[in-house]
Amino acid sequence: MEKKLIGVDLGGTTIKFAILNEQGEIQQKWSIDTNILDEGTHIVPDIVASINHHLSLYKMQPEQFIGIGMGTPGTVNLEKGTVIGAYNLNWKTTQNVKQQIEEGTGIKFAIDNDANVAALGERWQGAGNNATDVVFITLGTGVGGGIISNGEMIHGLGAAGEIGHINVQPNGYLCTCGNHGCLETYASATGVVRIARDMAEEFAGKSTLKQKLDDGEEISSKIIFDLAKDNDVLAKNVVGRVCYYLGLTCANLSAILSPKYIVIGGGVSAAGKFLLDQVTDYFQKFAFPTVRTSTKLKLAELGNEAGVIGAASLALTFK
Amino acid sequence: MEKKLIGVDLGGTTIKFAILNEQGEIQQKWSIDTNILDEGTHIVPDIVASINHHLSLYKMQPEQFIGIGMGTPGTVNLEKGTVIGAYNLNWKTTQNVKQQIEEGTGIKFAIDNDANVAALGERWQGAGNNATDVVFITLGTGVGGGIISNGEMIHGLGAAGEIGHINVQPNGYLCTCGNHGCLETYASATGVVRIARDMAEEFAGKSTLKQKLDDGEEISSKIIFDLAKDNDVLAKNVVGRVCYYLGLTCANLSAILSPKYIVIGGGVSAAGKFLLDQVTDYFQKFAFPTVRTSTKLKLAELGNEAGVIGAASLALTFK
Repeated sequence: MEKKLIGVDLGGTTIKFAILNEQGEIQQKWSIDTNILDEGTHIVPDIVASINHHLSLYKMQPEQFIGIGMGTPGTVNLEKGTVIGAYNLNWKTTQNVKQQIEEGTGIKFAIDNDANVAALGERWQGAGNNATDVVFITLGTGVGGGIISNGEMIHGLGAAGEIGHINVQPNGYLCTCGNHGCLETYASATGVVRIARDMAEEFAGKSTLKQKLDDGEEISSKIIFDLAKDNDVLAKNVVGRVCYYLGLTCANLSAILSPKYIVIGGGVSAAGKFLLDQVTDYFQKFAFPTVRTSTKLKLAELGNEAGVIGAASLALTFK
Repeated sequence: MEKKLIGVDLGGTTIKFAILNEQGEIQQKWSIDTNILDEGTHIVPDIVASINHHLSLYKMQPEQFIGIGMGTPGTVNLEKGTVIGAYNLNWKTTQNVKQQIEEGTGIKFAIDNDANVAALGERWQGAGNNATDVVFITLGTGVGGGIISNGEMIHGLGAAGEIGHINVQPNGYLCTCGNHGCLETYASATGVVRIARDMAEEFAGKSTLKQKLDDGEEISSKIIFDLAKDNDVLAKNVVGRVCYYLGLTCANLSAILSPKYIVIGGGVSAAGKFLLDQVTDYFQKFAFPTVRTSTKLKLAELGNEAGVIGAASLALTFK
């Protein structure tokens, strides 16, 4: 019988699980809440218990699985399978994740960080069409990324794919990393709102967005994109500026990596074709002529499932 | 007996050859002029003849070689071993280089473009210390580059490593590629002179560089760097601007690739430590904190031999 893969997507509020076949099709999925109490010491035992419980419920044996793959916040040591600095999990010290999960389940285990794992998912089963060279950019609270070249994840010394910290505007907005002008400060959900507040100050015309900001209403990147779609002038300017920086970044990533696809995902990308078209316009403007036609910008296709699918793909290394 | 490698560095004026052992040490080297007459049709036959002549002179057999590797201008099809668009060789149509050389010498043949091959050379035997993740930037008439990640050259769809065409200044100088603000327009030998002419126009103080420019003297990037070392204020400002763009680019490459080394070579890098220190200062300013300490900027060490050494390393694939 064909062996299966288990994918685990560890997040700050939920842990998602899925069982997939080797072709990457999800056959079963479930989830549990993340218990971050007691410095996150319950998390790994909970994962082990949930997998074992699920397997016994469906009368499955460890031998039926190629392996378990997991995406996690924090900094991952790939060889050792340890994680450090996952602050949203309350993990303050190095966690021996691989050892605990392999001992607890009897199944081989591989791990990478969540942005990389989402990139692997989109590349394998989503917008990446399983191409050998794919860049994934995720626009959420922050901006993250993952880069696949020659069919392999690029880690470098560990910090590869920090697309949110590409400097797009020297002396620009202050970033959480301490630098000024990182892409994240313009193209994350909070960055979009920040641009709106800034541009509103100098905006004199008629704009619902301006009015909402002046009235002290709570503004989100979704509201801004929706208003832009409704032709609000200020909102359109804000979106234009976000897309300018994203298009510039995509152009530079293409000159460096010459990927087949740059896939844009995450919450902000819910703006869909409206976002993609404008980013593509700026990409076309800034890109080196050769890559202008060879690299294609796409929206992510897997949504929340990119994590478990990409995580499961890590286990293919045990085949 | 240990088998050898042959490295060929094909340039617009000279073709360099070297025989290396598997450890990458050059044991013999020679060169011939590049004959670009008759649409460059003599080039490949000349290479074949020169290799065969050298082998017979030293009583060596094709079986004693693992393979031949070559770096070439133009766009390379790696699988087919063909080259197109090498205008400085007068090659206007697709050249079946691999087929002709393998048939002519009886030795296996691999090929890549010259910037990639120089990157492989510096990584293998030069400043790259044979690390798995190395970025190479060459500052010459243009700005080129090569990226090695996970121990492999990154080609993507073919245009990877076009570091000279990273956009560092939207709406900046017009580049030969048609875009504005490519790194090449600021950090190539011609770019340095262009910055000097621009800054001289608005410069009011005392400067030998300013005087030379006003007198219509021929100015080179070497003259500018030499004057900057001699404390010429304008020349120092010009070098500062070049290093600003280079440091910014190195910072962004590090956020994307997290390499162990970024190696800077090519004619402009002859300015040595004077250049490197200033580029490093800007790199430190712009780099994501994690890579600020992990990625190290270095000067290239192999000079002209990077080409033949890197070319030879291509043939290691036939081991």
